[in-house]
Amino acid sequence: MTAPTAYLASVGTCLPGDPVDNTTLAKLVGVDESWADMFIGNAGRHFAVDLATGQVRHTLADIAATAADRALAEAALEPYDIDCVVMGTATPDQLMPATVNLVADRLGIDNVPTYQLQSGCAGAVQALDVARTLLLAGRCRTVLVIGGDVCAKHLETDFDPGSRTSAELVNYVLFGDGAGAAVLSAEPVGGAGIEIRQVLNRLVGLGREPGQVIDWFGLGDRHSDRTAVSEDYKAIEETVPALAQQMFWELLEDLGWAADDVDFLLPPQLSGRMSDRISAEMPAPDARRINVVRHVGNNGNALPFLQLAELLRQWEGPGRAVAVAVESSKWIKSGIALERS
Amino acid sequence: MTAPTAYLASVGTCLPGDPVDNTTLAKLVGVDESWADMFIGNAGRHFAVDLATGQVRHTLADIAATAADRALAEAALEPYDIDCVVMGTATPDQLMPATVNLVADRLGIDNVPTYQLQSGCAGAVQALDVARTLLLAGRCRTVLVIGGDVCAKHLETDFDPGSRTSAELVNYVLFGDGAGAAVLSAEPVGGAGIEIRQVLNRLVGLGREPGQVIDWFGLGDRHSDRTAVSEDYKAIEETVPALAQQMFWELLEDLGWAADDVDFLLPPQLSGRMSDRISAEMPAPDARRINVVRHVGNNGNALPFLQLAELLRQWEGPGRAVAVAVESSKWIKSGIALERS
Repeated sequence: MTAPTAYLASVGTCLPGDPVDNTTLAKLVGVDESWADMFIGNAGRHFAVDLATGQVRHTLADIAATAADRALAEAALEPYDIDCVVMGTATPDQLMPATVNLVADRLGIDNVPTYQLQSGCAGAVQALDVARTLLLAGRCRTVLVIGGDVCAKHLETDFDPGSRTSAELVNYVLFGDGAGAAVLSAEPVGGAGIEIRQVLNRLVGLGREPGQVIDWFGLGDRHSDRTAVSEDYKAIEETVPALAQQMFWELLEDLGWAADDVDFLLPPQLSGRMSDRISAEMPAPDARRINVVRHVGNNGNALPFLQLAELLRQWEGPGRAVAVAVESSKWIKSGIALERS
Repeated sequence: MTAPTAYLASVGTCLPGDPVDNTTLAKLVGVDESWADMFIGNAGRHFAVDLATGQVRHTLADIAATAADRALAEAALEPYDIDCVVMGTATPDQLMPATVNLVADRLGIDNVPTYQLQSGCAGAVQALDVARTLLLAGRCRTVLVIGGDVCAKHLETDFDPGSRTSAELVNYVLFGDGAGAAVLSAEPVGGAGIEIRQVLNRLVGLGREPGQVIDWFGLGDRHSDRTAVSEDYKAIEETVPALAQQMFWELLEDLGWAADDVDFLLPPQLSGRMSDRISAEMPAPDARRINVVRHVGNNGNALPFLQLAELLRQWEGPGRAVAVAVESSKWIKSGIALERS
C-alpha cells in the first residue's frame, strides 16, 4: 500500500464583469492615470461593485460558485462527487451564514463538512493545506477548495476624491475582486496527474506589527468614522521578499529538491510593480515565472488560483512547480510544491 | 503500531467581567424582567462591552488568549509545545489580521500553522474536527483549539428601548460573550486520557433558508440602516431538535455504541428554555445532561468548550460522552464522541 497523497485535479476561476483599466479608474477616483501605474503597476482589475453607482453586481457567493462550477466541469465531476468544501476569504458576504455554505447550496452540495477560513493572501494556501490534510488522513476522497475576495466592499463609492488621502486612494488602484477554485483528490482525476507534494503554512508574526488591517463594523459602531483598511507599505516592501525566499527554500529542503529542479515559480502577488521585483529577486532564475496581479489587481484569496490556472495552461509534460504566498496582515508565509511525473 | 488517535488533554474558559442578571439587563434595555425569562429562559450572561456606556472592555483576542492560557496551564504545557492553533468564531475582532494570529502573538506562539474558521454554534466542533484531522494525518502532535464570540459587537449600546421591536430586543437577552479553549494531543497528556473517538460535522442546508443572519458593514455601506442580526426562531425551534437527534444517532452508529452506553450528553445550547426542551427530548434519558447556556447566555463558539469544562469537572472514571451542536445560520449538524477507558 502506498502512502496517501493529494492530486490537483482541476482549477476554475471567475473575474466579475469587464476589466476596469487605469484610464477609467483614474477618471473615476479623480487621480492622474500615471499615478496608479507609478505606485502600483497594475494595469487592470475587475470589480464586483459598480464604483460609479455603488450597485453590487456580484456577491462573493456569486463569483465563488461560478469558479467552483468551472473547476468541477474541468475535472468532469458532479457536485455529489465532492465530499468536503474548504474556502478561504478575507471578505465574506456576511459573518453568518458563512459564504462557503451559500456556495455549497448553489452547487447542490449537501451533507458534507464545510470549512471557511478567515484569511488574507495566504488563505488560498491554508485552504489547500486543510484539504490536503483531510485527504492524507483518509477523511475525504475529493475536496472542493475555493478562494475569493470582494475587496470592493471596503471601498467607498460615494466619495469626494479631493478629500481622500493617497493612502486611501491607493486601495482603489491596488485591489480587485475575483474567485478561484480547485478540486483536490486522493486519486489522479483525468490526465493531469499533478501531485501536491507539500503545503507549508506558518504564522511568523510574533512581535511584528500587522502590515495590513481590515476592519468590519457591527451595529454598535457602524456610524463611527474609524478607518476600515490600512496598510504599512514600508513593512510589506521590506518583509514580503524575505519571507517569500525563506518559504521557497523551506519547501525545497523539505522535499530534497534543488533550485534547478523547479520549472515554474508562482511568486507572491501584491501589485504588478512589487511582484515583478519579488519575482526577479527570487531564486531559481531559470524557472518560468507566473504572475497575474498586474492584470487582475490584488484580489486576495483568488490570486493563487488564478496563478494555478495559468500554470495548468502552460505546463506540459513532467516537471516541478513551487508557489509562494505571503500574508502581511499578521505575517504568514506559505507555499505549495507540485510535481508531475 | 496502533492507529493514530486524538486525546482531549485539557479545557480552559473565560467569561468577561461580572455576570449580568435579568434584573440589571431588563432595566438597561427597558423591558419587563419576566419577559426575558419567559421567552429565553437565560438567567445571566457576560458582556465584553459595557452596554450602559458602549465602552469595549474586552476584545475577542483578550478573552480567547485568557481561555487558551488556562487550557495550556491545565495541561501543564508551554506555548512552544503547541504546533498548530485552530480557532472558531462568528465575530472576529477584525477581518484582518485574523484574531487567531493576535491570540498566538499574545501567547508567544510562532512559526506554526494557524487556522480561523468563520463559523457559528457548530464552529467549536469544526475547529476540534480540523485539529483532530491534523493529528490523525500525523501533521501535528499538540494542537490548541479555541472558540469564542463577542456578540455584543452586534448590539447597539446607544439605543432607545421604545423604538426597538421584540425581534431586536430578544438579541440582548439571548446572547452573551465568552471564549473557551482545549488542547488536543496525539498522546495522552496528564492523567485524563480522554480519547476523541469521533467528530462529525455536516452541512445540511441544501434548499433551506438561513435560520440566522449576521451582517457586517464595510466602508461603502456602514452608514446604511439595514438590519445586522436576524433569527428565524420558528425554523430554529422546529429544526434544531431533529438535527440534534439525527447527529446523536449518527455518532452512535458510527462507533457501534448503544444509547445506554452514553454516560454524559452535551446537548445544543441555544437558550435556557430551548436547551432544556431539546435536552429532555434527546435519547439516552439516563445520560447526565450538561447544559450551561442558562447561566452564560448564547456565546456561540464558546459554548461547547464551557460544556466540556463542566464535563471534565463531573467526569470520574471510565465512561462515554456525546456532545452535539447545531448551527442554524445555514444548518450544520455536528457532534463529538469522547471515551475514557
